[in-house]
Amino acid sequence: MLNIGVLASTRGTDMQAVIDAIERGELDAKISVVISNKKDAYALERARKHNIKAVFLEAKGKEREEFDREVAKILDENGVELILLIGYMRYLSKWFVDKYRNKIMNIHPSLLPAFAGGMDKNVHAEILKYGCKVSGCTLHFVDEGADTGPIIAQKAVPIEEGETVDSLKEKVQKAEQEIIIKAIKLFAENKLKVEGRRVKILQ
Amino acid sequence: MLNIGVLASTRGTDMQAVIDAIERGELDAKISVVISNKKDAYALERARKHNIKAVFLEAKGKEREEFDREVAKILDENGVELILLIGYMRYLSKWFVDKYRNKIMNIHPSLLPAFAGGMDKNVHAEILKYGCKVSGCTLHFVDEGADTGPIIAQKAVPIEEGETVDSLKEKVQKAEQEIIIKAIKLFAENKLKVEGRRVKILQ
Repeated sequence: MLNIGVLASTRGTDMQAVIDAIERGELDAKISVVISNKKDAYALERARKHNIKAVFLEAKGKEREEFDREVAKILDENGVELILLIGYMRYLSKWFVDKYRNKIMNIHPSLLPAFAGGMDKNVHAEILKYGCKVSGCTLHFVDEGADTGPIIAQKAVPIEEGETVDSLKEKVQKAEQEIIIKAIKLFAENKLKVEGRRVKILQ
Repeated sequence: MLNIGVLASTRGTDMQAVIDAIERGELDAKISVVISNKKDAYALERARKHNIKAVFLEAKGKEREEFDREVAKILDENGVELILLIGYMRYLSKWFVDKYRNKIMNIHPSLLPAFAGGMDKNVHAEILKYGCKVSGCTLHFVDEGADTGPIIAQKAVPIEEGETVDSLKEKVQKAEQEIIIKAIKLFAENKLKVEGRRVKILQ
């Protein structure tokens, strides 16, 4: 059974979908710990509701790597094999990325490389402003860059007439959840093989 | 009946799809002239086969605008209302873009703004190298920039395991043809309304 750790700063909506898939028996996995740099992140509340260990870690006054070492300590103590970033609003230190190379997945609400690097931006609003007719989401392994790591999965979503930020976000989140669950399954089955920038899916 | 002019530098595969749609009676339009800056562009040959006026214009030794004025003269003499760029390997002068604002459509083999500005590059090869799992195409009105104009339509195409440049190109071209034909219909029915960067599709 795959042991997952989640890093989250916000609501953790996509994490709920993973929890649900586990509870439905669709994923042979467990989330053993959820860590947040935000004390009142609803993701922590969600974790508690499902009897998952929920840890708030104060980042203030700490160097990036110092903080990441604390995170890593908790992940390792809990035997985490796969780290999911779900709305995690912090850049990771090189040390952390190196330590967990190809074991950290991040979901981004656009079809990368379009609209990358939007940690503080409203990506959906930007996409609508640009006048795109297709958007989507990208699940990728985390590397040193911002949203540049090898792409595991992408799913497109059409933008319709009268689309709003909220309606787009809802559709894209559904797609996010779909590809996250698929990718966790593939990871658990050891079927994701990273070759340079490409992620091969073994049969 | 909508009068279309085509500017093409290469094979004009997508133009063939437009010709076919016209001949099937699916589009109430005609292509009155095809102009190329390449003497041996197969697009010219295609035009001749369908009794469409085919004009080669030598660009060598001419200023950009000077050449574009010659192109415009031919388009105007033939009563062209919509200009399609089909693999047209030249940047347009500001004069030309201004003259035909929101009347020039360009097809680009990626989901813009991703992989823009690839006039001399093999966009599909770049996309595969990046490790994308979704690609597609974009039809847009031409503005002063490279692949930056208001987006009329986009269509996504999944990238599968073992995808090659050729297999991807084939799938994307199919999508290109689909959205070009749809957009020509909407243009003919006066249903494309440009508002800033956004193209509204009127019902």
